[in-house]
Amino acid sequence: MTRPDPVRPDADGRVELTCPLAMPRATAYLWNPHLVVQANCRGHVDARHMQPEPARYSYAPNLEAKTFLQPEQPPYPHQPGRFVYVRDDDDGAFFSAPHEPVRRPPEDFLFSAGSADIQWRVRNLGVEVDMTLALPADDVVELWTITVSNPGDRARRLSLFPYFTVGYMSWMNQSAAWDPALGALVARCVTPYQKLDDWPKVREMKDLTFLLPGTAPNGWEAAREPFEGEGGLHAPDAVTRGGLQNGDAIYETPLAALHYRLTLEPGETRSFRFLFGPAKTADDIQALGERYLCDGGFEQAAESLRAYQARGRGTLEMHSPDAELDAFANRWLPRQVHYQGQTNRLTTDPQTRNYLQDALGMAYVDPGATRQALRHALAQQEASGAMPDGILLNADAELTYINQVPHTDHACWVPLVLEAWLDETGDTAFLDEPISATEGPARSVGERVSTAMHWLADNRDARGLSLIAQGDWCDPMNMVGPAGRGVSGWLTMATAFALQTWASICRRTGDTNTAATMNTLADDCVRAVREHLWDGGWFARGITDDGRPFGVASEDEGKIYLNAQSWALLAGIASADQQASMLAAVEKHLDTPYGTTMLGPPYTRMHEHIGRLTQKHPGSAENGSVYNHAAAFWVRALYAIGEPDRAFATLRRMLPGPDTEDRLQRGQLPVFVPNYYRGAYELHPRTAGRSSQLINTGTAPWLYRILVEDLFGLRGCDQGLRVAPQLPSGWESARALRRFRGADFEVSYQRQDGIRHPRVTVNGVACDDAIISDIEPGRHYTVDVRLPRA
Amino acid sequence: MTRPDPVRPDADGRVELTCPLAMPRATAYLWNPHLVVQANCRGHVDARHMQPEPARYSYAPNLEAKTFLQPEQPPYPHQPGRFVYVRDDDDGAFFSAPHEPVRRPPEDFLFSAGSADIQWRVRNLGVEVDMTLALPADDVVELWTITVSNPGDRARRLSLFPYFTVGYMSWMNQSAAWDPALGALVARCVTPYQKLDDWPKVREMKDLTFLLPGTAPNGWEAAREPFEGEGGLHAPDAVTRGGLQNGDAIYETPLAALHYRLTLEPGETRSFRFLFGPAKTADDIQALGERYLCDGGFEQAAESLRAYQARGRGTLEMHSPDAELDAFANRWLPRQVHYQGQTNRLTTDPQTRNYLQDALGMAYVDPGATRQALRHALAQQEASGAMPDGILLNADAELTYINQVPHTDHACWVPLVLEAWLDETGDTAFLDEPISATEGPARSVGERVSTAMHWLADNRDARGLSLIAQGDWCDPMNMVGPAGRGVSGWLTMATAFALQTWASICRRTGDTNTAATMNTLADDCVRAVREHLWDGGWFARGITDDGRPFGVASEDEGKIYLNAQSWALLAGIASADQQASMLAAVEKHLDTPYGTTMLGPPYTRMHEHIGRLTQKHPGSAENGSVYNHAAAFWVRALYAIGEPDRAFATLRRMLPGPDTEDRLQRGQLPVFVPNYYRGAYELHPRTAGRSSQLINTGTAPWLYRILVEDLFGLRGCDQGLRVAPQLPSGWESARALRRFRGADFEVSYQRQDGIRHPRVTVNGVACDDAIISDIEPGRHYTVDVRLPRA
Repeated sequence: MTRPDPVRPDADGRVELTCPLAMPRATAYLWNPHLVVQANCRGHVDARHMQPEPARYSYAPNLEAKTFLQPEQPPYPHQPGRFVYVRDDDDGAFFSAPHEPVRRPPEDFLFSAGSADIQWRVRNLGVEVDMTLALPADDVVELWTITVSNPGDRARRLSLFPYFTVGYMSWMNQSAAWDPALGALVARCVTPYQKLDDWPKVREMKDLTFLLPGTAPNGWEAAREPFEGEGGLHAPDAVTRGGLQNGDAIYETPLAALHYRLTLEPGETRSFRFLFGPAKTADDIQALGERYLCDGGFEQAAESLRAYQARGRGTLEMHSPDAELDAFANRWLPRQVHYQGQTNRLTTDPQTRNYLQDALGMAYVDPGATRQALRHALAQQEASGAMPDGILLNADAELTYINQVPHTDHACWVPLVLEAWLDETGDTAFLDEPISATEGPARSVGERVSTAMHWLADNRDARGLSLIAQGDWCDPMNMVGPAGRGVSGWLTMATAFALQTWASICRRTGDTNTAATMNTLADDCVRAVREHLWDGGWFARGITDDGRPFGVASEDEGKIYLNAQSWALLAGIASADQQASMLAAVEKHLDTPYGTTMLGPPYTRMHEHIGRLTQKHPGSAENGSVYNHAAAFWVRALYAIGEPDRAFATLRRMLPGPDTEDRLQRGQLPVFVPNYYRGAYELHPRTAGRSSQLINTGTAPWLYRILVEDLFGLRGCDQGLRVAPQLPSGWESARALRRFRGADFEVSYQRQDGIRHPRVTVNGVACDDAIISDIEPGRHYTVDVRLPRA
Repeated sequence: MTRPDPVRPDADGRVELTCPLAMPRATAYLWNPHLVVQANCRGHVDARHMQPEPARYSYAPNLEAKTFLQPEQPPYPHQPGRFVYVRDDDDGAFFSAPHEPVRRPPEDFLFSAGSADIQWRVRNLGVEVDMTLALPADDVVELWTITVSNPGDRARRLSLFPYFTVGYMSWMNQSAAWDPALGALVARCVTPYQKLDDWPKVREMKDLTFLLPGTAPNGWEAAREPFEGEGGLHAPDAVTRGGLQNGDAIYETPLAALHYRLTLEPGETRSFRFLFGPAKTADDIQALGERYLCDGGFEQAAESLRAYQARGRGTLEMHSPDAELDAFANRWLPRQVHYQGQTNRLTTDPQTRNYLQDALGMAYVDPGATRQALRHALAQQEASGAMPDGILLNADAELTYINQVPHTDHACWVPLVLEAWLDETGDTAFLDEPISATEGPARSVGERVSTAMHWLADNRDARGLSLIAQGDWCDPMNMVGPAGRGVSGWLTMATAFALQTWASICRRTGDTNTAATMNTLADDCVRAVREHLWDGGWFARGITDDGRPFGVASEDEGKIYLNAQSWALLAGIASADQQASMLAAVEKHLDTPYGTTMLGPPYTRMHEHIGRLTQKHPGSAENGSVYNHAAAFWVRALYAIGEPDRAFATLRRMLPGPDTEDRLQRGQLPVFVPNYYRGAYELHPRTAGRSSQLINTGTAPWLYRILVEDLFGLRGCDQGLRVAPQLPSGWESARALRRFRGADFEVSYQRQDGIRHPRVTVNGVACDDAIISDIEPGRHYTVDVRLPRA
């Protein structure tokens, strides 16, 4: 390890990066319920808001496709960003902060991700520039503070040019100009449309993009091309010249650039505030200005966002020998769970599977939201018991993209989410609540779950294997079963596990009849899997329409799939011998330094018996990346069979670091767990490990659940809180604060010689069954856990 | 006029531009039946091919929307292009040809548009670089020649880096690498899709993009980011370093960059050839290489394209006092007509109106194509007689974009096209040909036209005015009549004119009954227009669902529409007094130095009684630009009422120049007539006149027809060729070569004192009725026309 580590993973609650070159795609994100802003360390910013469909207000230089979030988006100079050019008016030298677009090597650089703000601190040409991006808790607006300091010993005459990308807004109509009444630069467009039916929607769009400064500028420019001129974005004519021409954009690409002339004495600092965002009317802009550009406006907004985010602090505070993991688990992971649960990943038709699993995460953050989501989802259950491909979040929403492709797994997530929520809340009365649906009669929650389970059990062929149609959890596995015969091994296991889970819940509520029925059905799934899918060394992933097994050793690519092993373990399908064989196979075929990949070897060509999955780039996304969602299932399964060291090793590799080479290769800061890291470790070692930079992933809720329930073993049950930790053998001690059913549990873990089983003491009293019962809300419990050495 | 003129509008059959800054958006285009390439003077290239839907092989840096062609696309550095960086290996200085992305001011610059190739000649750092782009007549591939010369007196050690943009191909799968077997740089992708039904289409896509050099390079780079590095596109690390690292792109943005090291002695020249384009397989690439990189391969390709283009040379050669107009009319305009007629503007579902008018143009270029297009269109006539919104060109084609919005004018274009074709060919037997349609019984051409005319006549309300539904010729006029009551004044006039035209054709073929019926219907349209649409100074454009007239003086915006005047003249609706009033109104409200705008004043806000049209940017597209298609109708109408000087003045303003300021403001080379020039001359003088740079427009066919039939007055009729010129009064003499029904007519025009009517002499014999009859194919006619002075 020769390179210096540019990352400070836990700098006073923040994650910091000290170089703009080391990992140029590194991002941080902020959100409120209507707005998500992801900014990279160099100043490019991707902002999306809901109106109600996701939309932008700072655009690319061309008409971009409207699509779902794409991984590993390659940066390019005209990508939307927020920059400030700083020019020395004495000698004409200039740079830009934070780094793009001039890219002048900085004397000092810091990119600092906080929970409620993102900061950059740059020193260049002897001038210090601080930029802070914050959001308010509710409004769709970016709050920017740009502070310029002169740390030197001579006065500096400077020109500051804040440059906020507006970009190519619309082919129908786009323009921009300074609005003297507002004191803002306002760009206007008409969202492109052609059909009359779309007009009522377009009419409601926030089609203005504005930059409202707190300090009146010396000049402005509202069009991209005259600002840049022949000099280009890296050396704009406007900056070289040292002044703006107060131009407008008339069906030209808009820009929001301002000019401030200032002289800074030695030690002097000047601060500027800006609002940037979309609006529907000038009045809206004015109202935002009054709200946030008043004295203390930014401070109040920060307070409100902190208050909002505090509701998402999560149920666990861990203190382990792994400080980076602590920082991630205590701050960033619950934040990500909260973000997903609150925003539904910025769609109005989340995939049912995503919607439910995001709700699962909320059980540990805001259980009321889980309850509400379960109700909302079950209200869209079909009369047959099937769950739809997507959950519509408002009356105008429609199933789009992948939700137009029939998948058969959605029902299986219902009892899993329900169980997590019941474990947290113990609120079994919820099962009796009636829910009306658009199809079929009103039914109680419990009845709906049973119906969904029967649909799942019925969605099997004569062998007892689950039909896959055009996909299951694995979206692009679309050619296994389109003819109606192909089956999913994973889904058969997941069906078994869902049935078992629902049976267990029913048993808890005394509904032994349903429990027995569900268990019988589950047993039949287990039998079918054992009979048809054991491939000798591991379980097959499925059997195609034409009867061809895949995810088997005889295939040249995609020999083994991780999910088919994980869920066989979760559903208790594998014998001890099989387990050993599966563990070895995963280690051999799927483990990499960057995590466990979801299949191997990755496909390098189209396999028409499997489908679109095999066409994705080898090592990317579902085609053999370290797809963290699948890795989380594997971790959960390893804990389920009592493999804490393997589990922890896999878990830990979901995060960058701790060593520098690993960080640089992944290129991501530990402020979220990404959708995937590149796989194809043997085929493409140069790119293996790279982060997708995607902040949306089913990993987050599962990972959080694993930390709480498996690693620290603090899982709810009917009687109370069961203590059953599975710390890695290398941890001598640890501490955790667990919030549960209104009480606080301060748990200390300590290895102890000479014991063979964990010993739990609660408030000084031995707790032989390791279940803390009769929990009193508001009370503080001190729990001491002694663990045998491995 | 102080600025030097950078344009040479007629440089030996080419149009040349001598500065890369004067009009940076200036483009030229090449095409063959499967490929259209539009290149700007600075090296950005927009290439689209049909497979069968329009597709790209050189992409933007992000996922661009798939959409129809957009006007005035703003250039940005990462826009796809074909560049060559040239580095002096002795001192490290470098530039790029033609101008982007380095933008180093050249010592000499030439952008030269030819019919069958586009050339750039750049001198910079004492090195001369010639770049030539050509296409073969049939294959989808760009043929590039890059020649480097050392005109100096010392040897030069140079590095050449051809840089061909591949760009962001696909989120599913994209990669690139050097293929040593092919000796080519090959980028690969999978066209993104999600639905199983799309796979058969995707499977057939040409998903490779290749750069195949004729000379083996010293190195290559297949990924964008490592080539650019921190230096950026304008100063790439690879160029600064002076070498490439033979890298690949692994789910990274592909690039096709090569490196050649060479030493050029004084006076020495080296030439390199490249093929660049899409392919389905490596074998295809190899085959293209064998075809074009062999000795004489480029020369043969050029010959084949010339031969192909010769079929589109048109029917007129004019020699007038206006040399620029001559050059445009003799070379560029028929080429554009041919391009549109051959490629259908790169769509598989051209709007019926566009398809038919493009076919109209082909009557003067390749009349067989017109005939075929009429048959193809009429075969898609609906049983009701209505013409569909778009014509499907293949079995898989679907109505897209604007064709999903119901328009009511499509039928009216049928007789207008038919008349032009009959005038050219005299082939009235065509009218009896039977045509089967997907709907309804087989009917002859003539019966189909009559049915279409009855549909048009029936599509009127109780007042006799034509219902507009959601649009007529003016696509975005979508809220005038969605409730089924709003009417189009223009369409009522166009219906009258179509009925009159069909009546006149029927009269020619002796079908006097149909002629009488049609004339009666036409008269009723005329009556309705006169009764309901005269606004006192001009004709209204229509009356909305709510009975509100628009295009009238009482409106604050959109007071007057050009088409409502043009077609009132064409259909003989206006009295002499009305005509005078209309001419004055057009001059006052619509004439600008850049042409006649299609409405005025432009709308500056949404008018919900008119619709989407009013939301377009004022002065752009249909909202009051100099929309040349409408201007062409006005010219045709002015000739129809014998206003040759007004007509010519309007016509001439469809082209840039001749004065320098005008050229610079329009920013377009006279190699095509554009869809529009910006209007809003009073509201936005800074941008008025700017070209849309769109090469697709219904203007081209009409303008060509006007030159042939109106300006030079050489129109076909049953008896032969009628000579009835309307030269502008300022022309003392002119000459024209007219090809007509297999014979050549060399026509000279001369003003003569003392005569009051034109005098026509054919082969020395006076031709009193000015109709040259009994034309013998293959014969050469000498026609002398004496014209009175105005």
